[in-house]
Amino acid sequence: MNHYPESILNLIKSLSRLPGIGRKTAERLSLHILHAPNHEAQTLANDILELKKKVRLCSTCFSLSDREECRICSNPNRDRSSICVVENPTDMVAIEKSGAFSGRYHILGGALSPMDGIGPDELRIKELFARAVSKSITEVIIATGTDVEGEATASYIIDNLKKKGVNVTRIASGVPMGGDLQYVDQVTMQRAMEGRRGS
Amino acid sequence: MNHYPESILNLIKSLSRLPGIGRKTAERLSLHILHAPNHEAQTLANDILELKKKVRLCSTCFSLSDREECRICSNPNRDRSSICVVENPTDMVAIEKSGAFSGRYHILGGALSPMDGIGPDELRIKELFARAVSKSITEVIIATGTDVEGEATASYIIDNLKKKGVNVTRIASGVPMGGDLQYVDQVTMQRAMEGRRGS
Repeated sequence: MNHYPESILNLIKSLSRLPGIGRKTAERLSLHILHAPNHEAQTLANDILELKKKVRLCSTCFSLSDREECRICSNPNRDRSSICVVENPTDMVAIEKSGAFSGRYHILGGALSPMDGIGPDELRIKELFARAVSKSITEVIIATGTDVEGEATASYIIDNLKKKGVNVTRIASGVPMGGDLQYVDQVTMQRAMEGRRGS
Repeated sequence: MNHYPESILNLIKSLSRLPGIGRKTAERLSLHILHAPNHEAQTLANDILELKKKVRLCSTCFSLSDREECRICSNPNRDRSSICVVENPTDMVAIEKSGAFSGRYHILGGALSPMDGIGPDELRIKELFARAVSKSITEVIIATGTDVEGEATASYIIDNLKKKGVNVTRIASGVPMGGDLQYVDQVTMQRAMEGRRGS
């Protein structure tokens, strides 16, 4: 495949390392960048470096942030009495997109998984407990994943917070909206039945 | 969509500008780069900048090159008596991949297209004529595209080179290998018939 100059081959190789980008796509992208205006390529390169340099974890909720405290934690308009606990920053983004929560978050950095050597000390659970016992907190909402690890993490946190007298809730599980019931898996259907409410 | 810190949003925006990369893919790639080792992100950014800085056109054949003369033109093992004329560097790469040609190339930089204001002076046709009349050249092979513009470009070059007494040939048109004849379009089939040879 050595039919391009070295600097094109180098970029093709670097781009191929990205997830979902194969050799052919990397080739196409490289040639696009080659023919794109200089400032566009420079912006792209610069954005990559800035991202690595600037993004860190919020000192309060551990979500991704450009600053010491993230935009949500430092926003005075957010409700400071509730904390929503999620595994990862992307989960937080999904909840933010829904617009259904106006409090602040706590990002655990993963889920309990003893098989992979991830115990409570590997996650930001201690930090959650420290935040949750503050008098200003009236509700901690658990929104961990619905897989085995997420469920285990939720149980562990709920048990411990209840002992500390904290009001804990969990987001509802059930059938997703807009879907056909015939495609809903058994476990989800069981959860939907268990969680039925009078209407 | 403002749920990420600014430096992540910037990279998402830059990546979305690339062809075939939508908002979702850009988001996924940005988060991958965020979690990738520092040196990987730096290599990627560096490769982008190096590409723009280093790649230029070969002074002989006008293909993409890191140096004054490209690897093919400066390779003493390539046959110096034949020139293959193509529209673009990617066409050259396609021929190189086939391994069917061992001479040198001439990249026109496009095809004649009076509708778009591309005449002979906008392409590197003058330079081709200058190279082709050299006594060391025994054959000029035309491998322009098979669309209207490519055909027009081929005719123009063939007419002019013949007047100058240069031996010009064209790569064969016909049915592609490995395909089903029923899917071959009419024009290709006509070409294949016209180009039939005794066997």
